[in-house]
Amino acid sequence: MNICACEQRTVCKNGSRNSEFGVSILPVIYIATLVCLQRRARTMPLKSLSVLLPGIKWLHGYTAQDAVADLIAGITVGLTVLPQGLAYATLAGLEPQYGLYSSFVGGIVYAMLGSCRQVTIGPTALLALMTSRHTGFGLDSGPAYGILLCLISGVVELGMAVLKLGALVDLISLPVTVGFTSATAVIIGTSQLKGLLGLRGGSGSDFINTMRSVFGNLSQVRRGDLTLGLVSISVLLLLRRLKTVKVAQRVRNLRAQQLLSGSIWVVSTGRNALVVLVSSVLAYSQCKSQDSCPFILTGKVKSGLPSLALPKFETTIMGKNGTEVPQTFEQMLSELGPSMLILPIIAVLGNVAISKAFGGAGLSPTRELVALSLSNICGAFCSSMPVTGSFSRSAVNHASGVRTPIGGCYTSVLVLLALSLLAPYFQYIPKAALSAVIISAVIFMIEFEVIRPLWRCSRRELLPGAITFVMSLAIGVEIGLLLGVGADVAFLVYRAARPVLSVSKLQTINGMSYILIRPKHSSLYFPAIEWVRSGISKALSTHGTAPVVLDCAHVHDFDFTAARGMGSLYKELAKANVPLFLMSAHKDISVILKESTNIDFPTIDCPNDLESLVEQMPDFELHLQVTAPLVESKMLQTVEANATELSKLTTSSA
Amino acid sequence: MNICACEQRTVCKNGSRNSEFGVSILPVIYIATLVCLQRRARTMPLKSLSVLLPGIKWLHGYTAQDAVADLIAGITVGLTVLPQGLAYATLAGLEPQYGLYSSFVGGIVYAMLGSCRQVTIGPTALLALMTSRHTGFGLDSGPAYGILLCLISGVVELGMAVLKLGALVDLISLPVTVGFTSATAVIIGTSQLKGLLGLRGGSGSDFINTMRSVFGNLSQVRRGDLTLGLVSISVLLLLRRLKTVKVAQRVRNLRAQQLLSGSIWVVSTGRNALVVLVSSVLAYSQCKSQDSCPFILTGKVKSGLPSLALPKFETTIMGKNGTEVPQTFEQMLSELGPSMLILPIIAVLGNVAISKAFGGAGLSPTRELVALSLSNICGAFCSSMPVTGSFSRSAVNHASGVRTPIGGCYTSVLVLLALSLLAPYFQYIPKAALSAVIISAVIFMIEFEVIRPLWRCSRRELLPGAITFVMSLAIGVEIGLLLGVGADVAFLVYRAARPVLSVSKLQTINGMSYILIRPKHSSLYFPAIEWVRSGISKALSTHGTAPVVLDCAHVHDFDFTAARGMGSLYKELAKANVPLFLMSAHKDISVILKESTNIDFPTIDCPNDLESLVEQMPDFELHLQVTAPLVESKMLQTVEANATELSKLTTSSA
Repeated sequence: MNICACEQRTVCKNGSRNSEFGVSILPVIYIATLVCLQRRARTMPLKSLSVLLPGIKWLHGYTAQDAVADLIAGITVGLTVLPQGLAYATLAGLEPQYGLYSSFVGGIVYAMLGSCRQVTIGPTALLALMTSRHTGFGLDSGPAYGILLCLISGVVELGMAVLKLGALVDLISLPVTVGFTSATAVIIGTSQLKGLLGLRGGSGSDFINTMRSVFGNLSQVRRGDLTLGLVSISVLLLLRRLKTVKVAQRVRNLRAQQLLSGSIWVVSTGRNALVVLVSSVLAYSQCKSQDSCPFILTGKVKSGLPSLALPKFETTIMGKNGTEVPQTFEQMLSELGPSMLILPIIAVLGNVAISKAFGGAGLSPTRELVALSLSNICGAFCSSMPVTGSFSRSAVNHASGVRTPIGGCYTSVLVLLALSLLAPYFQYIPKAALSAVIISAVIFMIEFEVIRPLWRCSRRELLPGAITFVMSLAIGVEIGLLLGVGADVAFLVYRAARPVLSVSKLQTINGMSYILIRPKHSSLYFPAIEWVRSGISKALSTHGTAPVVLDCAHVHDFDFTAARGMGSLYKELAKANVPLFLMSAHKDISVILKESTNIDFPTIDCPNDLESLVEQMPDFELHLQVTAPLVESKMLQTVEANATELSKLTTSSA
Repeated sequence: MNICACEQRTVCKNGSRNSEFGVSILPVIYIATLVCLQRRARTMPLKSLSVLLPGIKWLHGYTAQDAVADLIAGITVGLTVLPQGLAYATLAGLEPQYGLYSSFVGGIVYAMLGSCRQVTIGPTALLALMTSRHTGFGLDSGPAYGILLCLISGVVELGMAVLKLGALVDLISLPVTVGFTSATAVIIGTSQLKGLLGLRGGSGSDFINTMRSVFGNLSQVRRGDLTLGLVSISVLLLLRRLKTVKVAQRVRNLRAQQLLSGSIWVVSTGRNALVVLVSSVLAYSQCKSQDSCPFILTGKVKSGLPSLALPKFETTIMGKNGTEVPQTFEQMLSELGPSMLILPIIAVLGNVAISKAFGGAGLSPTRELVALSLSNICGAFCSSMPVTGSFSRSAVNHASGVRTPIGGCYTSVLVLLALSLLAPYFQYIPKAALSAVIISAVIFMIEFEVIRPLWRCSRRELLPGAITFVMSLAIGVEIGLLLGVGADVAFLVYRAARPVLSVSKLQTINGMSYILIRPKHSSLYFPAIEWVRSGISKALSTHGTAPVVLDCAHVHDFDFTAARGMGSLYKELAKANVPLFLMSAHKDISVILKESTNIDFPTIDCPNDLESLVEQMPDFELHLQVTAPLVESKMLQTVEANATELSKLTTSSA
């Protein structure tokens, strides 16, 4: 672990101290965490080992067949993660090798801790995009920010696991998710246009600036890169479709059929590696010197493993005048800002979805969250950028017949081998080919197909989706996501504040008229009570004076504010000689109404009970005086409204 | 309107231009607004005048008796607002006359536009406190900020009226209101300690700093001020109780009884004016020179009316080194920050409460909002700080027998007279007396009595109240209020996300077991669907495999995310050979489920229908294949989870 490439020198200089610290702190964090989480598991000592390392159970009865299956799946996933890792690191604004540094820790950690065989953890396009917002400050600050963000994400995820906050992802509705992924796909796609067109300069996460810069430099498009890029995209899309074409069925010979369909599967699944390999060979043959090369190449990829070291808590960035500006830890944190919270939530969202898709409902979300968290924390000690479960690679893993999470270890070994042995050849990968890999991956993430059913059955839900999409493009994906969730939450609050009231004027069997109000909501809370009050007022002015019956059959809960509001409504109506009855009220509701208002609300079980009750109260106002001892001041009898309390503050004399 | 006092000179210099502009812009704003709001009222022309100026209706049949009643009430309110205005201006960090400048516009505007005779609009302790956060920057920036805030509040309130956002006050629950008013009362009370103790230095809105400064300077307490302050408070509290003592009833002579109770009422109601008057006379007799004076006095109050001028959109503040730092309009806005939104909301909250308390449900909230808004906008042209309805003065107005809002005009005239004629004498008012007026006003606003019923019937609601109270004291009232509302909203979202699921294993009459799940919530939206899914999984693992019946009798609404989640739950259960039925589902729900998932959910009306349906589907898996055409990819049959969409973004191959 001490093979340091040129740029790692700064890290290596004081690497010995860092390394030692890193080596010693890793198991401590790990053990402390799991001990915390598993306080209940007190049986000793073999069982507690499997609690700490649930991966041990995979080794029980691990047969040669299992190993072969895992090996094949591991290698297949490895062939996918190699080009993706290089590409996503570039997308994140880091040198390509950081993508590979990010690709091997997750596999090993998940093999030890995870419980779903298909899940593979590593760099993803979305996290790379979110990381890229913090890597553009020049000097060696890019990796410093990326790795610190990885560590913080892991810690935040651990906190979410401990506090069981994984449920926060429930707040992200499907339309918001679709808006978010579509916007992200558009941003990632356009950010790769530069690579595809052969334009120099880094890719950014800012949609508008990227588009402006691309269109401003259209005259400098390089024909070689453009051709290679377009051809690569076409080939990738064709190979992707190949899997669904049933060519093999036309061949009669069963063995040939199997062989053909097998090779089609291999070619289609390994298409990224294939395209990158072919284009690299092409570039290698064409590019004897830098100048004569028709493609922009990836450039030197640092060979060797990353050093095991603490993330850097200080860095220097390039100032406006080209000067070096040192950044303290606090400044780094303030630069990362909301990303420190939003990135982990997005990571958890993705990971939860994958483990749910492949593992069903039997998985422990907390355990999965711990595995993800430690993949990030441990990764940060190996210069990883933030990682999470990759849906596409998990699908490849599943399709390749993986049997246990140990398959991830084989992927990790392949990545480490590539870092040690293949790195010198990575420099010949044309950037246009990597851009093509990313574009043909994200192009399918722009989801139009959800718009139609939404339009047909719930148009209102298009709004949060549209807000998320537009704001993600215009301002940034984090803001877009937050605004979308905010719009959804606002709707939830609106529903609680403005319950549908069904109002009808009915008659009992003996012909006594009454007004039935039925709130179609399971609770009456503070934001709704004024609405109910004004609804009853309106009903009275529409239908004329009659006893009011509030049907509480569907209402399970009142809060204090609503109960007090009911109390003042009761008194207000009583002053107008209108009795108010509750119908089918649960006992809890009667209790909270009584405790909050000191009024015994007359309660009925069916409308026909009304008659006898109303007869018993011929002088309703008198009746009120008896049952409502709260009315203290004559002058301000009606003053019991909710918000009233506030304005009293302006008081002095009275 | 052109009598300018010394400090107003700067305004007067370019006052002519400003004045003209002010005079011309006021009616334009007013007419444009009302025309906008009353587009529907198209009848001409007399009726449209009364639409523009609803106050005209008060003049119809305005008798001499009405005029006398209004005059008495107006003078009584005036005697309350004079000391309060002087005190609240000091609380806001402004010179005393600004409190009077703020006290006459509201009465006139409300007489023209308002519809509730009791409401009086003017300065209040709460708004003064909120204003004081922006008046401490030295030089002449205090009035500039206060007046600008008044203008902006008016404009924001107008916006709220047009967008019908007055309902935002519904979001403030009773516990939050109580926490907020109590914290504000504590802050205002402590801010007056300095005046009461005779300590020099301005009062602030920061509770912690104020306490620190008071306790740090205890050695400098002045005996004269302290004595006067304590005596004043005692007298004020005694006079306040006087009204409730039934002394008069012991007198036999009816006329003497009336006279006595009348004078008791006058003394009790006018107690603020009385205390201020007596202490001022005392100070005038004692203080021949500044040095020999046992009390700190209010100091010179500028005589004369405020000039009619545009609010200042630029100002200069005192820099750190005592230099003058000019502030542009943008800098002023950024200093005002969230106050520009929160102050109007608080103002509306207070005003809505008062008009509801006195006017009942018959008032138009929009019209009240427009009246409040224009009181602020017009006020800003007369150097007013933000104003709203005052609960205490409205109560005085009501008790004094006011008959029409024209009473407010008499108050305004009294204030204008005081500004012209009495101002020279205001300088003798001891600060301690004004502090006593404020303290004995706010001391009753600390509400303990709401804690007991809350504790007994809804302990959870203590939390938002406590958050509001503590955070208001620790950080600031705006933040405290926002956090309290945030806690309440979080609870609403939590309720929607975690509906109570009642789960039971039952049998049909023929003995067929089934699991009945009944969500006790009126809707299943995005945050709840995972909860329902895992609830059903748990029920299956607890009760064993049996058909699952989801009772939708209380569920009125599904959203798209929840419908999709139900779809994947259906398929997941089908794979485990567990059929899922909906019971008593509304038609709307069936439609949205069908449109979103393409699955025909089997629906029953009563559990006994189960048997025949289950018999019809002996091969349940086959049945699923036929009715679920959405399942496209064999490999990812289960991949339909909500959040799944997101993680797909990481895709490439698969």
